[in-house]
Amino acid sequence: MNYPTSLKNLIESFKLLPGIGEKTAERLSLAVLALDEEKTQNFASSIVDVKTKIKKCQICHTLTEDDICHICKDLDRDDSILCIVEQAKDVILFENIGTFNGKYHVLDGLISPLDGVNPDDLNIANLIKRVQENMIKEIVIAVTPSIEGETTALYLSKLFENTDIVVSKIAHGVPLGTNMEYIDSLTLEMALENRKKVSD
Amino acid sequence: MNYPTSLKNLIESFKLLPGIGEKTAERLSLAVLALDEEKTQNFASSIVDVKTKIKKCQICHTLTEDDICHICKDLDRDDSILCIVEQAKDVILFENIGTFNGKYHVLDGLISPLDGVNPDDLNIANLIKRVQENMIKEIVIAVTPSIEGETTALYLSKLFENTDIVVSKIAHGVPLGTNMEYIDSLTLEMALENRKKVSD
Repeated sequence: MNYPTSLKNLIESFKLLPGIGEKTAERLSLAVLALDEEKTQNFASSIVDVKTKIKKCQICHTLTEDDICHICKDLDRDDSILCIVEQAKDVILFENIGTFNGKYHVLDGLISPLDGVNPDDLNIANLIKRVQENMIKEIVIAVTPSIEGETTALYLSKLFENTDIVVSKIAHGVPLGTNMEYIDSLTLEMALENRKKVSD
Repeated sequence: MNYPTSLKNLIESFKLLPGIGEKTAERLSLAVLALDEEKTQNFASSIVDVKTKIKKCQICHTLTEDDICHICKDLDRDDSILCIVEQAKDVILFENIGTFNGKYHVLDGLISPLDGVNPDDLNIANLIKRVQENMIKEIVIAVTPSIEGETTALYLSKLFENTDIVVSKIAHGVPLGTNMEYIDSLTLEMALENRKKVSD
């Protein structure tokens, strides 16, 4: 049997999203059908709104509804330290910690020659401009520790090696609260290599 | 940090759906942001469409865009056998098998005195009307084998006990392809009770 056309369309739309297969799409679509009128309207209009209102901050490429995001605008934040992340949503991860008081720079990807992603395809020209125009003291590279991540980190550290800017990288190791037996050997090796004295 | 308002609204909308928490809602909302213009418009309009176009078939309460669903309209289907299901989406489960050629009747719930759901709250008056107006020979009860399901099945069998209508219930037992050790004892008991000769 086929679903009614409008339900089928909604199922197809849900299936465009990551991790949503046929079954889940069906379940979600039927749940939408059970929402009240107002919530359905809100859902539909927020989808359109997201697409029309959200843009990238002209400075750091974070998602924002303004030309310049509220982090870049914030005069209380430290202009001299930049946290470099891969995607706009990573900014939220770091903001959720609540302790980082510097600013961000979103690369919109990682260098990956195999996938044809070169430094020119990333938001790096903008980074260089920011460094030239501001008194940046430190650049913290906070990207996934994959081959692409390491390549990007290396590229950025080379880029600023003849400047006074400190290029650092977030620590990689065993995450808190994890059972040691679930940690892969590469992470363990890294954790061992980067060991710290217990009492400093 | 807070997401831009429109993104926050979309996240809240996703969170209204079953099984979608904060993290998943964030991930899905960011995925919507990455869809192209046309797909986003389709997504939004299909949500509104589902709500405005889909209604219950006047005869069997299956979801349809017409007054009478295509199953009820189908002259090739056997009018004399009714499959009784709890929800409209269950019809799809049975239609997917492809072998049932009778018609359906959706109860829109199960009798559950504890939750204040009485026979009057269900689509039962309509069922009685269908039975009176048509030559129904068999009613197959295909609802979840829970306390509510069994209560409903019992109620329906009592309802038609002084008629020529055969009231049957789908078989409950060990599902195919399941490892025996994962089957609860109640199901096993039922499977044992309802055992069948291997060669008939």
